[in-house]
Amino acid sequence: MASLSLSSKPSPTTSSLSTPNSRDLILRFQNPNSISFRSSLVSPSSIELNRTGCCALNAGRVRSRICASSTQVMDQSPSETSSGVPTIVEVDLGNRSYPIYIGSGILGQPELLQRHVHGKRVLVVTNNTVAPLYLDKVVDALTKGNPNVSVESVILPDGEKYKNMDVLMKVFDKAIESRLDRRCTFVALGGGVIGDMCGYAAASYLRGVNFIQIPTTVMAQVDSSVGGKTGINHRLGKNLIGAFYQPQCVLIDTDTLNTLPDRELASGLAEVIKYGLIRDAKFFEWQENNMQALMARDPDALAYAIKRSCENKAEVVSLDEKESGLRATLNLGHTFGHAIETGFGYGQWLHGEAVAAGMVMAVDMSYRLGWIDDSIVKRVRDILQRAKLPTAPPDTMTVEMFKAVMAVDKKVADGLLRLILLKGPLGSCVFTGDYDRKALDETLRAFSKS
Amino acid sequence: MASLSLSSKPSPTTSSLSTPNSRDLILRFQNPNSISFRSSLVSPSSIELNRTGCCALNAGRVRSRICASSTQVMDQSPSETSSGVPTIVEVDLGNRSYPIYIGSGILGQPELLQRHVHGKRVLVVTNNTVAPLYLDKVVDALTKGNPNVSVESVILPDGEKYKNMDVLMKVFDKAIESRLDRRCTFVALGGGVIGDMCGYAAASYLRGVNFIQIPTTVMAQVDSSVGGKTGINHRLGKNLIGAFYQPQCVLIDTDTLNTLPDRELASGLAEVIKYGLIRDAKFFEWQENNMQALMARDPDALAYAIKRSCENKAEVVSLDEKESGLRATLNLGHTFGHAIETGFGYGQWLHGEAVAAGMVMAVDMSYRLGWIDDSIVKRVRDILQRAKLPTAPPDTMTVEMFKAVMAVDKKVADGLLRLILLKGPLGSCVFTGDYDRKALDETLRAFSKS
Repeated sequence: MASLSLSSKPSPTTSSLSTPNSRDLILRFQNPNSISFRSSLVSPSSIELNRTGCCALNAGRVRSRICASSTQVMDQSPSETSSGVPTIVEVDLGNRSYPIYIGSGILGQPELLQRHVHGKRVLVVTNNTVAPLYLDKVVDALTKGNPNVSVESVILPDGEKYKNMDVLMKVFDKAIESRLDRRCTFVALGGGVIGDMCGYAAASYLRGVNFIQIPTTVMAQVDSSVGGKTGINHRLGKNLIGAFYQPQCVLIDTDTLNTLPDRELASGLAEVIKYGLIRDAKFFEWQENNMQALMARDPDALAYAIKRSCENKAEVVSLDEKESGLRATLNLGHTFGHAIETGFGYGQWLHGEAVAAGMVMAVDMSYRLGWIDDSIVKRVRDILQRAKLPTAPPDTMTVEMFKAVMAVDKKVADGLLRLILLKGPLGSCVFTGDYDRKALDETLRAFSKS
Repeated sequence: MASLSLSSKPSPTTSSLSTPNSRDLILRFQNPNSISFRSSLVSPSSIELNRTGCCALNAGRVRSRICASSTQVMDQSPSETSSGVPTIVEVDLGNRSYPIYIGSGILGQPELLQRHVHGKRVLVVTNNTVAPLYLDKVVDALTKGNPNVSVESVILPDGEKYKNMDVLMKVFDKAIESRLDRRCTFVALGGGVIGDMCGYAAASYLRGVNFIQIPTTVMAQVDSSVGGKTGINHRLGKNLIGAFYQPQCVLIDTDTLNTLPDRELASGLAEVIKYGLIRDAKFFEWQENNMQALMARDPDALAYAIKRSCENKAEVVSLDEKESGLRATLNLGHTFGHAIETGFGYGQWLHGEAVAAGMVMAVDMSYRLGWIDDSIVKRVRDILQRAKLPTAPPDTMTVEMFKAVMAVDKKVADGLLRLILLKGPLGSCVFTGDYDRKALDETLRAFSKS
């Protein structure tokens, strides 16, 4: 098998994890002929994967400068993370770097938002669920002490099934009718669907205007608002049309979670659990110990989970913005999950629900391949059940439905489907097309009708 | 008035123009307070314009490294430009640089095309006029001696009125139904509409795949295929939705012009004339001396006009890819022209026809402002008439129609419409919002109904 391992030097103690400068990487070539490098170690984003696209990762122990403003993470007790001053996680992307602000009540601090607004015209893109709750608050934050700024808004219908081109055109219509020029700023106020659509609209309007993410769901706060993946669905597959386009900042007011339905809360936790599984065993263990607090919406626990998730996401995105390898690992369970969302009907299940079932399938397949032991299988099922998330796809899914959607997955390369699978101890995964097809078939048959 | 001049050192003789290394720039600040620099001289793309956005340019004499492969341009006789070996003009954009190949019969040289195809799957995007003429030839060029490559094609209806989101979706449908993955390559085969749409589809499909431009009209060969501006129209304005997205290469087979209708040929010449007016007086003079040969489709004359236009375009794009200033000058006449295209109905006039009328209006306004003398006004009208291009908008255009469309022009900044106007000797222009509104009103009234 051709593969490449990125891992930190063996640490004498786990406390060394909290040193931001410990960026020593060990590159282990199992088959150097099949991997070509174009650049130096400090830019692993330029790793080119071979046809089977295998890249073994155990990056949970790689620390980088991106978290300079929030060091000592693992040693920090959760209660220290939710003071009035926002925590800042930096996404390091050269001249497209930006901060993620995380804190309670920070929508009441206009200066945070206003420092990232370019020009005098703002378009807030939101939906009919979020608008009654937070639109006025955001308009206040944009305009308070700032009379030169004028704010327009466009309110879209709420739900994954509206993440399409017809609804996106409403954003363009509003922007053009309002005569917004290139110096305007779009603001995404809502969950992942709003963030993805507003971001893609910003990427495309007049060939690109600035935008800001204000995520109001756990799903958007821990995952979709960070990293610049924007886009819409096609009837044949999720997120097939879009752009890599980074925001000016991400502003996470954890108070917005007070109005989040339980089902949406759980959906977001699926992505939190994902970070633990693919790269951060300590975080997974913390989640096992704190799932009750998370489900009870303990503010400190939620704030810590959001922050640690953003740090993981920022680190991966900084290393591989355009998903040449490493970043794909953030999609654990998503290939199966997207098939569920597309096959079952957009919006029938929430994204995190589909990802949860998808992660169980990916873990099942990893176990069938002999790559993980059964204790991990059990721990994954247990934590998802405690988060009240599904651990199997809907009854109506068939093997053929899975195969049809998975064939157009963005991780297919030259006809070969690459998957993120767990391998080795907790917190380790691979992104590979080099697996026994039989194991995939067995997993699909075990979880769906023939 | 706040303005900045970029010009070469005064040259003792014009022959010094052909030295690619003469990049000595003189920066002349008329009001240094109103212009901020963020970077060094070699990166004028980072010039920030002030609110009135004024930037005086006389860049026809600025030479840069981009033309390293085609030096001695002005001293070269046209007959030397159309040998069997393609001329190569480089567009210098760092790691997004690419070559423009120009030559007769180069679609019959498969290796040129194939060296820029990534992956094994290609989607040719073309229209129902061009497909019967050149699709087979392009498929042959893609597959000859290259049996591993498979080619799909999607044939769109021909015309500016189809440059919209509904038609663009047909490209995505075809790509997804064909299960094209991120390693595929899109190929734009046709004129400016096809190039713009295929480029935007490539920018958005799976968040970005590679693409190649094979322009088959003078308009596309001298202008739209070079520089990475892609997009579609909105019912309220041209090119309002799109992306800056660069191709892997541009392949210009001048033989494709043999099948171009006369009206399309003339339309493309409008952009050729534009380069002369904004930055290349020598080229304008050459056009005055060679318009008869161009209209008679003399291959050497056309090849030289295409090459010199590409050099001008490549130079401007290399200096200011995302149109922070300089690049806007390529839009001389386009603000008026877009108003004609949108107001009169997409496709009623060809793009170059609308630009021709728009240039006459921009020149008229420049003269009213006292910025040019009447000999330039006369020369512009004369050359456009010789190219059988319109020198006034359609009778049905009203002042209000112009104003409505111009209000959503991409060059509006903070409510102020910036225009490209001629100023000084032939080959000099400004991009500015600092002009007497009365002159604009007078021009609109002189050329359209109240």
